[in-house]
Amino acid sequence: MRIVVTNCNTTQEMTEAIVRGARAAAGPGTTVTGLTPAWGPESAESWLDSYLSAASVLDTLRTYDGPPYDAVVMAGFGEHGREGVRELVDVPVVDITEAAAHLACLLGRRYGVVTTLQRSCGQIEDSLETAGVARNCAAIVGTGLSVLDLGDEERSETAFLAAAERACAAGAEVLVLGCAGMTGLQRVVGEKLGLPVVDGVAAAVKLAESLVGLGLTTSRVGGYAKPPPKRRVWGRPGRR
Amino acid sequence: MRIVVTNCNTTQEMTEAIVRGARAAAGPGTTVTGLTPAWGPESAESWLDSYLSAASVLDTLRTYDGPPYDAVVMAGFGEHGREGVRELVDVPVVDITEAAAHLACLLGRRYGVVTTLQRSCGQIEDSLETAGVARNCAAIVGTGLSVLDLGDEERSETAFLAAAERACAAGAEVLVLGCAGMTGLQRVVGEKLGLPVVDGVAAAVKLAESLVGLGLTTSRVGGYAKPPPKRRVWGRPGRR
Amino acid sequence: MRIVVTNCNTTQEMTEAIVRGARAAAGPGTTVTGLTPAWGPESAESWLDSYLSAASVLDTLRTYDGPPYDAVVMAGFGEHGREGVRELVDVPVVDITEAAAHLACLLGRRYGVVTTLQRSCGQIEDSLETAGVARNCAAIVGTGLSVLDLGDEERSETAFLAAAERACAAGAEVLVLGCAGMTGLQRVVGEKLGLPVVDGVAAAVKLAESLVGLGLTTSRVGGYAKPPPKRRVWGRPGRR
Amino acid sequence: MRIVVTNCNTTQEMTEAIVRGARAAAGPGTTVTGLTPAWGPESAESWLDSYLSAASVLDTLRTYDGPPYDAVVMAGFGEHGREGVRELVDVPVVDITEAAAHLACLLGRRYGVVTTLQRSCGQIEDSLETAGVARNCAAIVGTGLSVLDLGDEERSETAFLAAAERACAAGAEVLVLGCAGMTGLQRVVGEKLGLPVVDGVAAAVKLAESLVGLGLTTSRVGGYAKPPPKRRVWGRPGRR
Amino acid sequence: MRIVVTNCNTTQEMTEAIVRGARAAAGPGTTVTGLTPAWGPESAESWLDSYLSAASVLDTLRTYDGPPYDAVVMAGFGEHGREGVRELVDVPVVDITEAAAHLACLLGRRYGVVTTLQRSCGQIEDSLETAGVARNCAAIVGTGLSVLDLGDEERSETAFLAAAERACAAGAEVLVLGCAGMTGLQRVVGEKLGLPVVDGVAAAVKLAESLVGLGLTTSRVGGYAKPPPKRRVWGRPGRR
Amino acid sequence: MRIVVTNCNTTQEMTEAIVRGARAAAGPGTTVTGLTPAWGPESAESWLDSYLSAASVLDTLRTYDGPPYDAVVMAGFGEHGREGVRELVDVPVVDITEAAAHLACLLGRRYGVVTTLQRSCGQIEDSLETAGVARNCAAIVGTGLSVLDLGDEERSETAFLAAAERACAAGAEVLVLGCAGMTGLQRVVGEKLGLPVVDGVAAAVKLAESLVGLGLTTSRVGGYAKPPPKRRVWGRPGRR
Repeated sequence: MRIVVTNCNTTQEMTEAIVRGARAAAGPGTTVTGLTPAWGPESAESWLDSYLSAASVLDTLRTYDGPPYDAVVMAGFGEHGREGVRELVDVPVVDITEAAAHLACLLGRRYGVVTTLQRSCGQIEDSLETAGVARNCAAIVGTGLSVLDLGDEERSETAFLAAAERACAAGAEVLVLGCAGMTGLQRVVGEKLGLPVVDGVAAAVKLAESLVGLGLTTSRVGGYAKPPPKRRVWGRPGRR
Repeated sequence: MRIVVTNCNTTQEMTEAIVRGARAAAGPGTTVTGLTPAWGPESAESWLDSYLSAASVLDTLRTYDGPPYDAVVMAGFGEHGREGVRELVDVPVVDITEAAAHLACLLGRRYGVVTTLQRSCGQIEDSLETAGVARNCAAIVGTGLSVLDLGDEERSETAFLAAAERACAAGAEVLVLGCAGMTGLQRVVGEKLGLPVVDGVAAAVKLAESLVGLGLTTSRVGGYAKPPPKRRVWGRPGRR
Repeated sequence: MRIVVTNCNTTQEMTEAIVRGARAAAGPGTTVTGLTPAWGPESAESWLDSYLSAASVLDTLRTYDGPPYDAVVMAGFGEHGREGVRELVDVPVVDITEAAAHLACLLGRRYGVVTTLQRSCGQIEDSLETAGVARNCAAIVGTGLSVLDLGDEERSETAFLAAAERACAAGAEVLVLGCAGMTGLQRVVGEKLGLPVVDGVAAAVKLAESLVGLGLTTSRVGGYAKPPPKRRVWGRPGRR
Repeated sequence: MRIVVTNCNTTQEMTEAIVRGARAAAGPGTTVTGLTPAWGPESAESWLDSYLSAASVLDTLRTYDGPPYDAVVMAGFGEHGREGVRELVDVPVVDITEAAAHLACLLGRRYGVVTTLQRSCGQIEDSLETAGVARNCAAIVGTGLSVLDLGDEERSETAFLAAAERACAAGAEVLVLGCAGMTGLQRVVGEKLGLPVVDGVAAAVKLAESLVGLGLTTSRVGGYAKPPPKRRVWGRPGRR
Repeated sequence: MRIVVTNCNTTQEMTEAIVRGARAAAGPGTTVTGLTPAWGPESAESWLDSYLSAASVLDTLRTYDGPPYDAVVMAGFGEHGREGVRELVDVPVVDITEAAAHLACLLGRRYGVVTTLQRSCGQIEDSLETAGVARNCAAIVGTGLSVLDLGDEERSETAFLAAAERACAAGAEVLVLGCAGMTGLQRVVGEKLGLPVVDGVAAAVKLAESLVGLGLTTSRVGGYAKPPPKRRVWGRPGRR
Repeated sequence: MRIVVTNCNTTQEMTEAIVRGARAAAGPGTTVTGLTPAWGPESAESWLDSYLSAASVLDTLRTYDGPPYDAVVMAGFGEHGREGVRELVDVPVVDITEAAAHLACLLGRRYGVVTTLQRSCGQIEDSLETAGVARNCAAIVGTGLSVLDLGDEERSETAFLAAAERACAAGAEVLVLGCAGMTGLQRVVGEKLGLPVVDGVAAAVKLAESLVGLGLTTSRVGGYAKPPPKRRVWGRPGRR
């Protein structure tokens, strides 16, 4: 099967890192194709970025003309757009935010999320709430790192461990990497902390494979029916 | 004071109707300026439309170069984007969804929302929940009308009254017009139903005036800090 | 329009301070009339006081014989009675507790309340909950000051700032003055704290003006129908 | 032990009926003393009545000069005042609303309340919520009867059974009599319905006996500390 | 009346201590019979123990052949099984977890539970939640003591007081002994802490007496109907 | 990898049907081993059965001496025990109740469960709640069929479709088969209903494979630590 993984920003290197993480998680018969939006923010670190990202990811999938795919993984932690993609495509759609939470719920009574900037916590909170998996979330904690700071592995790890301690003090028994750019960190911090750490990209790949394997896709009854055909303009006419 | 009212779609006539509704509600010293996005959907009737709309409204405000304004009213019922606009501009921002609910809470123990298509109910539900005003919402009911059907006044009124009955049976004591395009309907259906009907556009104008009058604006502490400067592309480069 | 502002206690000076706060917030066409109950507690600082206050405020409005008014603002933060007043009068009724919370919700993701004695926090919590606006309340914090201590401005300010810090640590991005007697404090502490501070009296005046401006008043359907006529005695017969 | 049972209204006959119900439930060593407020409403059927009743019941207990008592049972279903009484007296206080719900929770997964007028449902809902026992309440249903209609036993029974059916359809497995004036009805309707029916007066007497028997009384730490001494006037000075 | 008190483990001494506590709480006409399961865990300190205990307690009551009894008290704090016992027997069933919480709700706005091992907190939380009394629970705190450590009174008391402080800091105004083995501790720690401390065994005895006294028992409508007859094997055939 | 699937009852045929369902869902490298408890109920249809089943499943796994396995799937819909199994074994544990809900959340905004007897709904509700996935559950509906009735395919299908309609009327966009014995029904009813139907057994197999694939297992921090060693007796000594 082919899974399309959409980066939520325009940074090609980030797409590549995400694809590496996705491939590491994918089963033998799974092909992973990464998509980088041609427009949008270079990294998503605000509500404004998140809405811009949602539109650009929708546009990317709407105009996709590669080989057919069996599922979409949306690789923006806490970012918007998943319901729109569910309307748009005919295959199952899994967002890494909800995916990590779903698996985390199976591994302990309460989980915590460790993310980048403190300002992202609110978006993640809303995303988990509407996905229906917030009940067992004990804490969402910021490390103070920006998405781009994540390149510095040592600093990331130190900041992650400090934030993880706060999440555990609040009751977390399992942790979730709260940013697609943290992919890969799960193993080392998991060992140091002595508890399971879930990476959303990996979780979403497995959930997408699961849904495809079971022949399940998004319900067209109710909220996620196909959007009615109408005139839509995707970006300012004539703009650079 | 000047209030900018943003339509969530590209249909100029709808902006005009909204502006009429806003002006009818505005106090004597208030000037209302309507903005129609240059891109986006011609009407917002799906999650996909809603995210597209959010980006286009943000772009519209980002590139606005008219006279200074004191507040923004976002006139898309149940549509996304308000948190992003709060980050972007320095003046208070009021979304008509939350505005209607805030005033409705003051008029009865439970309120109901009557909207257009059934498929919009989920978006409205999430919007009220994250705005913090869902607790006293007894029901969100669709009329089955599309946004464009609202032009037919008699049909709209009949459909509204039927849906209102279901909301009241679920405990609503106050009703909310669940679409900016319903502006104007509140008086006639209110009289027929014998209960208060709140129009979100009017409510948002009054709340915006209230905040401006009290010298209050969005907190920069926490979730709605200014978005960090970075490279962002608003629409596909080189596209029509 | 004329707004009647009811003090929740019998202390005339407090009524005057509240009226000053209300007038500072009121629009040009608004007349503010303060009412001091002829009976009740000299300040409301317990559940017992709150219920006594509720009855005395109801009696005050029931026997009011001044010029007609267009709205009632109830100026007891966290005090009981608002539903009874909604039944009693035919004009909109706004309680300062809910009013402050409604506006605070528009200014940040989470708000906090800073009040007088720790013992008042429970009443405020229940009041926000039943008003339907508790969801985004991050914390209700006592300063340890009694209502009468508020006369000492410096001490009040210091205590407020210390309590505000605790509210912010719990996630508040906006603050609410949790006592009518704090009216006036919002500007100075707002500046020191660098975030919006909402005064309930001012908020309630603006919301009352908004409802009157839109021709909206309490629903008579359901919970707030007129109380049935019957024999009621308002205070012990023959008592001093 | 002596239990004081406070009627929430001024109707002596209703006090007598309540006292009969309380005595029927009381253990051999328990003396029941009924108190009828000297002022307040003749029956409590609105929020206004409820707040008036709360003040008059507080005043009744405050000025009580009979023999010492060991507990207070407040016999107004859904009426206000219990927190104030908890502050005022040094003995345990049990309100019949919460008492019925506490016992009902022990008898089935979900309980329902059948009350008098539909308009009372909101007050009962809030009372159960703040008492902390609303979670397992499946429905609160009005019979359409006023408090005084309850004298007609046949009509009461018929109306109760019809309302009970609606509560059961909503999931109730146990029923609660939602008015002190219904005391006595529990046996006959319980048999006809084939499920347990809890009378709040009886439940409160047993809970009061339980607390007294265990030497437990209201905590003075936090919300229910003694009200601070201050000037309070209980009813309009010089009035009839 | 006769109340059967079931220990949740096989330790006879613990049954005796529980029976002593139950008898101290019981009214003059109440006989208390303790039952010790013939199989199960020697103390219940994990989910595994709790499920094993539930089955063994059910088996104990299923095969009971002593004198008839009027109620069952289940003396395992936070342990499973109460719904099954409600199905099995025809008399009222009260679990000490819910019993303590019900009484605690009557004594303050928020209560806290102080239990043995930290690992038990989750079970207690779930037990209170499904019993419908979690809403006013401010905190569940572990002392770090195992069930068997409770024999050392001085150490128990010290650990309890330290944990109680944390519960009070979280808002508890009333405390609950979170283990049947703590029975007896309530008086001494209550005095030292200056707030009411509820023992679940005593609370359950009083609630059981209350239900019996009112002629109430478990509803057979819905969730707790008699289990259908079928082949069931209670323990491995032929095992030691 | 090897997945052990535990039936919750002693009926060998049911284990076989479950194993068939599990194998149909399993990936190419997965071996499925079914376990039938040697004791317990022949089918689980009450709380009593559920607790008996929990103990017998724990005993089955505790005494298992077959080839090593990589994950456990617990195939009792709404039955107890999963937390105990998480403590007991070192591999990931997935219960079919939660598994179905997790996948259903990915396929629509709200899901519904269609189960056997009405009396099972309460257990399922509690199971979903504590698993943290109840928020988006719109309804749990009984078909009126017993577990053994499921053998009659036509009757099962008809009853399922009728119950499904009620779930959809309550807002369900996705359905969950609420009994392990329904495995296989998902395809035919899914087609007739035009919406996705999730089988818990299949879902649990895919989630177990996902966790194993990612190297994740239950956290030992907090609630699911290894049960402390102690004397435990698994069934009545010397009994048949």
